[in-house]
Amino acid sequence: MPVTTKAEAAAAVRAARVRAGLTWAQIAEQLGAPLVWTTAALLGQHPVTAEQAGLVGKLLDLDEAVVTALQDQPYRGSDPALVSDPTIYRFHEALSVYGPALKELIHEEFGDGIMSAINFKVDIARRADPDGDRVVVTFDGKFLDYRW
Amino acid sequence: MPVTTKAEAAAAVRAARVRAGLTWAQIAEQLGAPLVWTTAALLGQHPVTAEQAGLVGKLLDLDEAVVTALQDQPYRGSDPALVSDPTIYRFHEALSVYGPALKELIHEEFGDGIMSAINFKVDIARRADPDGDRVVVTFDGKFLDYRW
Amino acid sequence: MPVTTKAEAAAAVRAARVRAGLTWAQIAEQLGAPLVWTTAALLGQHPVTAEQAGLVGKLLDLDEAVVTALQDQPYRGSDPALVSDPTIYRFHEALSVYGPALKELIHEEFGDGIMSAINFKVDIARRADPDGDRVVVTFDGKFLDYRW
Amino acid sequence: MPVTTKAEAAAAVRAARVRAGLTWAQIAEQLGAPLVWTTAALLGQHPVTAEQAGLVGKLLDLDEAVVTALQDQPYRGSDPALVSDPTIYRFHEALSVYGPALKELIHEEFGDGIMSAINFKVDIARRADPDGDRVVVTFDGKFLDYRW
Amino acid sequence: MPVTTKAEAAAAVRAARVRAGLTWAQIAEQLGAPLVWTTAALLGQHPVTAEQAGLVGKLLDLDEAVVTALQDQPYRGSDPALVSDPTIYRFHEALSVYGPALKELIHEEFGDGIMSAINFKVDIARRADPDGDRVVVTFDGKFLDYRW
Amino acid sequence: MPVTTKAEAAAAVRAARVRAGLTWAQIAEQLGAPLVWTTAALLGQHPVTAEQAGLVGKLLDLDEAVVTALQDQPYRGSDPALVSDPTIYRFHEALSVYGPALKELIHEEFGDGIMSAINFKVDIARRADPDGDRVVVTFDGKFLDYRW
Amino acid sequence: MPVTTKAEAAAAVRAARVRAGLTWAQIAEQLGAPLVWTTAALLGQHPVTAEQAGLVGKLLDLDEAVVTALQDQPYRGSDPALVSDPTIYRFHEALSVYGPALKELIHEEFGDGIMSAINFKVDIARRADPDGDRVVVTFDGKFLDYRW
Amino acid sequence: MPVTTKAEAAAAVRAARVRAGLTWAQIAEQLGAPLVWTTAALLGQHPVTAEQAGLVGKLLDLDEAVVTALQDQPYRGSDPALVSDPTIYRFHEALSVYGPALKELIHEEFGDGIMSAINFKVDIARRADPDGDRVVVTFDGKFLDYRW
Amino acid sequence: MPVTTKAEAAAAVRAARVRAGLTWAQIAEQLGAPLVWTTAALLGQHPVTAEQAGLVGKLLDLDEAVVTALQDQPYRGSDPALVSDPTIYRFHEALSVYGPALKELIHEEFGDGIMSAINFKVDIARRADPDGDRVVVTFDGKFLDYRW
Amino acid sequence: MPVTTKAEAAAAVRAARVRAGLTWAQIAEQLGAPLVWTTAALLGQHPVTAEQAGLVGKLLDLDEAVVTALQDQPYRGSDPALVSDPTIYRFHEALSVYGPALKELIHEEFGDGIMSAINFKVDIARRADPDGDRVVVTFDGKFLDYRW
Repeated sequence: MPVTTKAEAAAAVRAARVRAGLTWAQIAEQLGAPLVWTTAALLGQHPVTAEQAGLVGKLLDLDEAVVTALQDQPYRGSDPALVSDPTIYRFHEALSVYGPALKELIHEEFGDGIMSAINFKVDIARRADPDGDRVVVTFDGKFLDYRW
Repeated sequence: MPVTTKAEAAAAVRAARVRAGLTWAQIAEQLGAPLVWTTAALLGQHPVTAEQAGLVGKLLDLDEAVVTALQDQPYRGSDPALVSDPTIYRFHEALSVYGPALKELIHEEFGDGIMSAINFKVDIARRADPDGDRVVVTFDGKFLDYRW
Repeated sequence: MPVTTKAEAAAAVRAARVRAGLTWAQIAEQLGAPLVWTTAALLGQHPVTAEQAGLVGKLLDLDEAVVTALQDQPYRGSDPALVSDPTIYRFHEALSVYGPALKELIHEEFGDGIMSAINFKVDIARRADPDGDRVVVTFDGKFLDYRW
Repeated sequence: MPVTTKAEAAAAVRAARVRAGLTWAQIAEQLGAPLVWTTAALLGQHPVTAEQAGLVGKLLDLDEAVVTALQDQPYRGSDPALVSDPTIYRFHEALSVYGPALKELIHEEFGDGIMSAINFKVDIARRADPDGDRVVVTFDGKFLDYRW
Repeated sequence: MPVTTKAEAAAAVRAARVRAGLTWAQIAEQLGAPLVWTTAALLGQHPVTAEQAGLVGKLLDLDEAVVTALQDQPYRGSDPALVSDPTIYRFHEALSVYGPALKELIHEEFGDGIMSAINFKVDIARRADPDGDRVVVTFDGKFLDYRW
Repeated sequence: MPVTTKAEAAAAVRAARVRAGLTWAQIAEQLGAPLVWTTAALLGQHPVTAEQAGLVGKLLDLDEAVVTALQDQPYRGSDPALVSDPTIYRFHEALSVYGPALKELIHEEFGDGIMSAINFKVDIARRADPDGDRVVVTFDGKFLDYRW
Repeated sequence: MPVTTKAEAAAAVRAARVRAGLTWAQIAEQLGAPLVWTTAALLGQHPVTAEQAGLVGKLLDLDEAVVTALQDQPYRGSDPALVSDPTIYRFHEALSVYGPALKELIHEEFGDGIMSAINFKVDIARRADPDGDRVVVTFDGKFLDYRW
Repeated sequence: MPVTTKAEAAAAVRAARVRAGLTWAQIAEQLGAPLVWTTAALLGQHPVTAEQAGLVGKLLDLDEAVVTALQDQPYRGSDPALVSDPTIYRFHEALSVYGPALKELIHEEFGDGIMSAINFKVDIARRADPDGDRVVVTFDGKFLDYRW
Repeated sequence: MPVTTKAEAAAAVRAARVRAGLTWAQIAEQLGAPLVWTTAALLGQHPVTAEQAGLVGKLLDLDEAVVTALQDQPYRGSDPALVSDPTIYRFHEALSVYGPALKELIHEEFGDGIMSAINFKVDIARRADPDGDRVVVTFDGKFLDYRW
Repeated sequence: MPVTTKAEAAAAVRAARVRAGLTWAQIAEQLGAPLVWTTAALLGQHPVTAEQAGLVGKLLDLDEAVVTALQDQPYRGSDPALVSDPTIYRFHEALSVYGPALKELIHEEFGDGIMSAINFKVDIARRADPDGDRVVVTFDGKFLDYRW
């Protein structure tokens, strides 16, 4: 009995979402969950509850094996090859340029520690601008100080 | 006549800032420039004007060669080895987990294109929270659509 | 229901084009789209509209799954292993040799910024030359200045 | 007697050019050589003649060791780390997206072979555009067919 | 006759364990074997005896081919790609930060040598803490001195 | 004025400690700080207070530049090349073998989350054993659950 | 309709050649083509004409899909993993040892330029020697001078 | 007493050769040694005898430390970064394209074994050709069969 | 007709050997071939004769396709991923620690040259020792001197 | 006070040994230590006692800083770049070819475990052979069984 992986489930979800003519925002609203969280979870980065998986399964007409895979505990992290996609690469470039500055400023404002990536949320929004609308992405994580 | 590199200038700035007892925020205020931009620029990621370089040179008592180097056009991007620093790594981890979701949502909201990393700004702030204060980092870039 | 990937669709298109005895130029003309854009899109680097996909499907007698895949939003970028193909490698070699010079000259002519690879087009032409005809490839992208 | 490397000579040229307040275009004009060729050569990618080296040495007030190094036969190619500079990266991204299409079209137009990167020239120009001026880079290399 | 690999067997065990509603601790108890050892072994890092394999096969209703694969001598070590999973990464980060210190202290306390990873056991426990419970992982390996 | 890096300071501390005939345990006791923390900090992985740096400077007869460097905010993480040292490698091998099992068991016991490497401490001890004494290393980090 | 790749075709050719009891030399003779060219082409490195492909198909009793694949335009270059094969590795070792010397001598004899790998042929021969016969491989490529 | 490395000696030889206005062929003739061997040896790939080193030292007016270094037993192999030099790269490209064919043909002609890279010599020559003169490089190594 | 690879044949041999309850030593004895050679050959590192392949096929009840694959000329070398297996890693660690010393001593005893890995054999034995039995592995290769 | 590294000490020892006209065997005999151990230790892979370091310092007329460095606890392992030296590479090639076979045979003879690389010794010898003398290298390490 072959096991459906979370990557296979993610591919199935992506194809089914287009077929169903639903947006990620509509799916998130149905689940009553945040937009980026929902999208990431259905792409395999978070486990979803049985109830959520069932709901998505109905919305997108997914196989039972996919519904099961969505509930599995994931190995998180995306394929490094995806970094070359231009839409994703720009975020990496921004980190390459501004990462050390962010580090200096976290230490200046908070002391020796980090922004948690676990107690953490992300949001994305459109901001209208006469020179062309802007993508605004917010990382919001709890500060954790080095504590022995 | 050996040339002072931007990396050497950045190291000199970091050491001089501590000796001078100044925060990055105070330096940015003196320059009248945004906080993250100023920090990144003095760490070598943006050229600064002759006037700005001179001002920083006085504030931090820098050598003339460092003041010159700050004005040089940079090769941007930080040493990949810095990714292993935990404060910087958490940003990369967040991208590894949420990058594909951000890509899906940019395409859903804006169409086929990217968030510019050139017409772009970053900000960082503290958000008070009873469970522990939070680091909030905002990426704000113009949407660019694929246009032939 | 297995999903046809864009890579599989590209392989199908390449084989079908040969079988159909059509040139890329003929296909581009049928689509009324630029030559390099059309070729890149059918190799999986741009989504095509439903109308374009249907037209190509008829021209090349493609499966419906391939026609669907051609419309999917791509993860852009080609397999790094293809760099070793001599026809592709020469472009990379040219960038390795002339990249820093192009950077200096972009900054000299335009200031601190980049040539966009999004608001961007490529063309290829044959230029007759008594010493042997020449391949002429033109990169044409909007200048974007670093703007905070 | 330490040997001045071409990388050290390039750094010296870059610094001296700024000090002298000369553009690359002015230097190229003085040498009577193409713009991109001149810039690349002084950055260490081509040997220059003794006469050219002497002329540049006077224009930029360079040490004799630098003038000698400019004439050395180079090991060509730039540091792969420079690829992360955004101005250079966009060219690599364009190749990643359009490389396979260019290969298809070279074979369609010319047959099995390559664009030479040796019998080859590059040019860069500004093209005015109401939506923002454009960087136009032209690669022009002799077609070489696979010939046994 | 295709051979079931240990990786395939591990995937089958993970899926079957969830279906069976058993914890790793319950399985380990059934086998009468240590918890971390049992989990690692069923994930393919240790061979198990025919008796143990049969017992697990019954508990989890596994195919005979899986039961056979669990007894195979493994090639040990996990896919380096798993390092990017945040739960696993934190251990690597801890080694990156504290590895050289542990080396210094092993040499100080024991002399020139190593902690064996063969004559070795690992344990994991929960430690209650008013600030939030803690994960306590213990590595316990025989000291081996460099002996010629 | 060249800046003393934390790596140079670490090398100076290692050499001075041997010359001074002091153990890491004696230094830690003098600082009133935990043993592994002290060792890691003096090897450059944590900033130490001015008072602690001064105390170490006297104990080990260090240059003022080294005393200053010990207080700098570090870029944490050790050179990946050190992984090939056998004493350090065995820890990496243990993670390669037992990492996925630890992940499974953290999720089983605590739910979806991680062991913090920031709110975290390490200890090392000798455990007498008739078959040869054992190195016991304890990782103790706060559990952090994925919390949006 | 799955597409037969050139790698699959190469594997089919290798197996069929052994089954047919033919040498590469016999096949090359049948094709009236040079020995190394023929072998490389049938291993997927050059397209062959429809006529040649048909001839080989008959000689080796190949499937039609293989015959078609042999005519496809290849992505040239072999899997880097093959470098570890000792028979292939010795050539790489020779280049690692003698490459810079060959570069110096090409420049000394011909000026600034390269040996073409496109207008190029290779031959292999046995040379009898009382100390043991020798493998003699000749690379023969047109000199191309750097010409702007 | 700093040790002159073979890489430093090679750089000194290259610079001195140009200053002295001697060709590699003239130096080889003076040493009575083969051309490629001599060039490779003086670039650090073979030890030379004390007599040969002294002779070269006089011809090129080298420091005694360089003369000593030329006699040292080398670690052979060149910096992998040199592969990107176009003159050297073409040899690597040829191996990437023709390596597997050469392997097939060595096995066909000689049986299971290799061309030695130790009992081995290389030669380079110019071959006049009306279409442009050609670089001819010959690898000539003893066949070694796998023999247990 | 899919081709059975040597890797697939090796997996089949490993599984069949366990099923057949035979040791490698028993198989080697049946073949009348050395122990390490036999094991390596059946794992795909040496071609075996038709007679040997047939004999093994009968002993282990192998498919005809496997018997054929065992006779194929191999691409030698194992998957680099196997280096992380602890049993194999210790050999690599020993080379990392003792490799340069072995090089010095080969040159001291034999002159400039190498131990052949082609005219070469390996043996493995158990040596009883009151402190615990020892694995003794012997590499025995013909010395080859650098000879032009 | 710059610290002499073990790599610098090794370079000093290598140069001094040649100047002193001593073999490694003579040095080992003076130290009363095994040949390979002595060579490896003086190349930086083992700490030597103060007495041994002093003795070597006198034999080779070494600086005091080198004598001190020889006693330092090393980070073991050699630069991976040295693998390309042919004399060292052949050992790696042998492991690549015979490593999996050695693993199978260790498990067959000893059970699940490893050959220790810590409780371990290496020897090298010349074995006369009419077909050319042979290098015989023996790895001899204690078997360690996986024991929980």
